[in-house]
Amino acid sequence: MSAFAGTDETTTTMNNSVAPLHRNELAELDKKIAHMGGLAEYNLGKAFDALVNRDPNLAQTVIEADAEIDDMQRDIEAHVVSLISRRHLAADELRQIMASLKIAGDLERIGDLAKNIAKRVVAIADQNYPRTLIVGLQHMLERALSQLKDVLDAYGQKDADLALAVWSRDEQLDETYNSLFRELLTYMMEDPRNIGFCTHLLFGAKNLERIGDHATNIAETIHYIVHGVEISAARPKGDTTSVTLFKPDA
Amino acid sequence: MSAFAGTDETTTTMNNSVAPLHRNELAELDKKIAHMGGLAEYNLGKAFDALVNRDPNLAQTVIEADAEIDDMQRDIEAHVVSLISRRHLAADELRQIMASLKIAGDLERIGDLAKNIAKRVVAIADQNYPRTLIVGLQHMLERALSQLKDVLDAYGQKDADLALAVWSRDEQLDETYNSLFRELLTYMMEDPRNIGFCTHLLFGAKNLERIGDHATNIAETIHYIVHGVEISAARPKGDTTSVTLFKPDA
Repeated sequence: MSAFAGTDETTTTMNNSVAPLHRNELAELDKKIAHMGGLAEYNLGKAFDALVNRDPNLAQTVIEADAEIDDMQRDIEAHVVSLISRRHLAADELRQIMASLKIAGDLERIGDLAKNIAKRVVAIADQNYPRTLIVGLQHMLERALSQLKDVLDAYGQKDADLALAVWSRDEQLDETYNSLFRELLTYMMEDPRNIGFCTHLLFGAKNLERIGDHATNIAETIHYIVHGVEISAARPKGDTTSVTLFKPDA
Repeated sequence: MSAFAGTDETTTTMNNSVAPLHRNELAELDKKIAHMGGLAEYNLGKAFDALVNRDPNLAQTVIEADAEIDDMQRDIEAHVVSLISRRHLAADELRQIMASLKIAGDLERIGDLAKNIAKRVVAIADQNYPRTLIVGLQHMLERALSQLKDVLDAYGQKDADLALAVWSRDEQLDETYNSLFRELLTYMMEDPRNIGFCTHLLFGAKNLERIGDHATNIAETIHYIVHGVEISAARPKGDTTSVTLFKPDA
């Protein structure tokens, strides 16, 4: 189809723009997503280290580094707008470009949530709490990190099967969240002095559950890019803490 | 500029597509955003009624109605992709179209958060807690609802001043959240039997604080549509609960 074809208004499948998309323009967009994903993964990993080592200074670097992730999102959005303005886009190219916008949005939120976890690490750093109290959160953080890593690999390789595996595993993260939620409430009931920092851990756990949801969103988007259809099965939804009431023994 | 102009690759500002955008195609997109916003506002209002009247059945209708908001987002995304594929878009038209995508994303999250509040209303419905305990949450919900209403009006009228007013008021919602957070923690420390449902109220309050953030995002997007530049002042960020530790008197 020439750049002049389809001036008839009934042509609906192609964007008859100035020039066709260069292969390296999509590759560049992919590289930006990979870079942004790498930053989010790095920050979440550092938040993990800060939690385990009770290191508020390291947590502070995570908080500050989030601005770079936000900048990357703006950069990706500008790149997308520029491609749409300047290029003749085939349907599958447009699908990829729109998908990259969505993924950038999810990564931005993951960055925010990692930053929020880091803030909570700072808040509880000087507290004298038993190590066991953060083991559950550590475990959840490891799982979330591994989900993020896998979904970024799936994006890099456009591997819908790997994406589907991430998508299916989200339920496990939700289950870990549910049991941690109950465990933390038990500590709070045992001793009111635990309430302050356990509340931070509760919100930290909720943040990790949300990070898992965003990894799941990204997995859905990858599946859509590769196959052109949405994942048909109902999405696993294992966080039941908002609909159940934990009743104290007392 | 004719539909044939700009075949030279150096033309960068216009999308030389099949046909120019019809005025009513942007109006239709606006109408869809307004409809989606109306649904989100309606659901949040119903969540409020369900909370005040301790009505789990009403809360259940809010939970079920959220699917319609999700459908609207998909509909808006499809509309946007269709416009980009078929139409010659001027820079300001493309800006408006991309903005509507962003706003639909914020409204989808507001819908999710309202649904989550409704789930918590169901969870605590059979609890015998003092009325005073939910007064703070009620107050926050009213504020969040009014922020959402105003920002939707600002979008309908493309009124950047009204959007800026919403943006500036977010700090008040954050302050209400901070004081409610502390109040709820006090109740939890006073009596461990309060911990279960106070935790639900804590998360409900956090959801409202997030709804305020999304209204603020929408206000920023409106400002960008109208003026073509971002709101320059630093964004008000008044939620300090993630960085402070509430210390029990005990």
